[in-house]
Amino acid sequence: MRALIYHGPGQRSWEETPDPRLAEATDAIVRVDAVTICGTDLHILKGDVPAVRPGTILGHEAVGTVTATGSSVTTVKPGDRVLVSCISACGRCRYCRTGMFGQCLGGGGWILGHRVNGTQAEYVRVPFADTSTHLLPEGVSDEAALMLADILPTAYEVGVLNGRVRPGDTVAVVGAGPIGLAAITTAQLFTPSHIIAVDPAPARLEAAKRLGADVVVGAGDDPAAAIAELTGGLGADVTIEAVGIPETFELCTRLVRPGGHVANVGVHGRPAILHLEDLWIRNLTITTGLVDTYSTPALLDMIAAGRLDPTGFITHRFAMNDMAAAYETFADPKSTGALKVVLSRP
Amino acid sequence: MRALIYHGPGQRSWEETPDPRLAEATDAIVRVDAVTICGTDLHILKGDVPAVRPGTILGHEAVGTVTATGSSVTTVKPGDRVLVSCISACGRCRYCRTGMFGQCLGGGGWILGHRVNGTQAEYVRVPFADTSTHLLPEGVSDEAALMLADILPTAYEVGVLNGRVRPGDTVAVVGAGPIGLAAITTAQLFTPSHIIAVDPAPARLEAAKRLGADVVVGAGDDPAAAIAELTGGLGADVTIEAVGIPETFELCTRLVRPGGHVANVGVHGRPAILHLEDLWIRNLTITTGLVDTYSTPALLDMIAAGRLDPTGFITHRFAMNDMAAAYETFADPKSTGALKVVLSRP
Repeated sequence: MRALIYHGPGQRSWEETPDPRLAEATDAIVRVDAVTICGTDLHILKGDVPAVRPGTILGHEAVGTVTATGSSVTTVKPGDRVLVSCISACGRCRYCRTGMFGQCLGGGGWILGHRVNGTQAEYVRVPFADTSTHLLPEGVSDEAALMLADILPTAYEVGVLNGRVRPGDTVAVVGAGPIGLAAITTAQLFTPSHIIAVDPAPARLEAAKRLGADVVVGAGDDPAAAIAELTGGLGADVTIEAVGIPETFELCTRLVRPGGHVANVGVHGRPAILHLEDLWIRNLTITTGLVDTYSTPALLDMIAAGRLDPTGFITHRFAMNDMAAAYETFADPKSTGALKVVLSRP
Repeated sequence: MRALIYHGPGQRSWEETPDPRLAEATDAIVRVDAVTICGTDLHILKGDVPAVRPGTILGHEAVGTVTATGSSVTTVKPGDRVLVSCISACGRCRYCRTGMFGQCLGGGGWILGHRVNGTQAEYVRVPFADTSTHLLPEGVSDEAALMLADILPTAYEVGVLNGRVRPGDTVAVVGAGPIGLAAITTAQLFTPSHIIAVDPAPARLEAAKRLGADVVVGAGDDPAAAIAELTGGLGADVTIEAVGIPETFELCTRLVRPGGHVANVGVHGRPAILHLEDLWIRNLTITTGLVDTYSTPALLDMIAAGRLDPTGFITHRFAMNDMAAAYETFADPKSTGALKVVLSRP
């Protein structure tokens, strides 16, 4: 088969490699029908994630068709159309048994395209298939389901649910890339009064407006002033950090009102300053997190019921063999306007 | 009357000053029967709280007897024995109407001994008396009630409840001063499996053991190792910061398990480093807060029912005229072993 292989910082190629085989009784082999690229893949290519060894196939998001299953797998069978989630779960450890699959102690968690070969390939071996794939109902397209492999549950769980967005809230989303836009989309499930998107890129603010932000704050504007105007000077009820740098995290702690919530979704490579000398008295709740994907079944139901349409994040479509072009498009959003790119089996 | 007046950094005196008078229809005048000193008073005396103007009477904790009430006060009357809470509440603003009295926008919050004259005096004017005092039932001693003016609801709400301590948890309390000890006491209401107290002072660790910690970690010991042994290497479910310096806050973020809670109770004067490069993936919840005192009625009920005895924090007793000696004892806990000191009307 062909796959996108990481060969060390800055080096990747779409090349021939052996087909994956069943290795454990709990495995499934899935033929990849649609796959996407994540900002995290770009971090890996920069060398920011040293746990990824050269020779690893990248990618942790896919929709596909089961072609083989190990002897203990009972919930999926060859021919089934499934979502391959970014989070694999042993289903048996202390964390899995409380729904915290992202922290799996039994060999799961975020492993695809990280500690084991991933989904940017014609076929992928999916460990713990019973608890790491989701059967797709008819009427849910590959493209819609693909947005549930990572960005939608990540933004929903780590941003909106951890941030405890409630009806009537003023929600500020800092960073309007795919994750921030998915937070804007899923925050609306709780009917906030206002959603403010903060991003220096005009194209992303346009997307934020299209997806439901009612106020956008660009490079030259002051988000604190915009939020103060909406909240009588109090600040946002919830701020969602969707960038992953110290400056935006610290901005989130300044924009939130006393008693509010700061939900960090961004993947950080550096520490931030926590101004406890101001914040100790402000009754803040700050959360961090990797997605658990406990919300994936409910999000799938909402798509099937027509309550949620995540295909608005998709800006570019490619055939799977055009993986190199897809990476180039995704890695240069300022020029291309790319949000999510989808690569499909011809 | 006599009162403890702050005359600028390092300067205080117990001296004659005019009796307080009713100023607003919502005021009460309370004769102070028992009063204590808080670590925050020492911070004020160091000059760390510039909002306190020279000439202010310090103190925000008292039990006393109402001697006069303004025309609109209906819940207390002269002769009533009341707890004067560290938090005053207008009862009408957006925050008060959601139980967040500490963030009162209507002129309340922490004001006694801060923005208005406080309780370290023979009499005190209590603003917003209807919503800032608690009638004391018979059978609850002045000393027991006095511990509800600040330390018990602070440790309970900002430490134990914000930290979401649950049955079976392993709880680490960093700092075994009065607030840490009150956290150890109130954490037990939720039947955790283990309470670990971390403090360099042997006398405080002795108090922690007496009040319910089952593991204590002193100056030469490694709290991470002690917690790892109790939790199979996972870390504490909840860590409670009860010191107020960056080092102990950062320790709390290291001692907590993935998915755990860090509850900051300490009053901080400097920023801390938040190691988001490690913590973004760990599903942490970090909370800060000033007490709201929404739990005070329930804590009073527990004392009246014999379910909670907070008098074990009291190490020294003085007559009110010995205020200078009480301050000296409280300010030097290493020599005196002082936790809470109580000053009573003769």
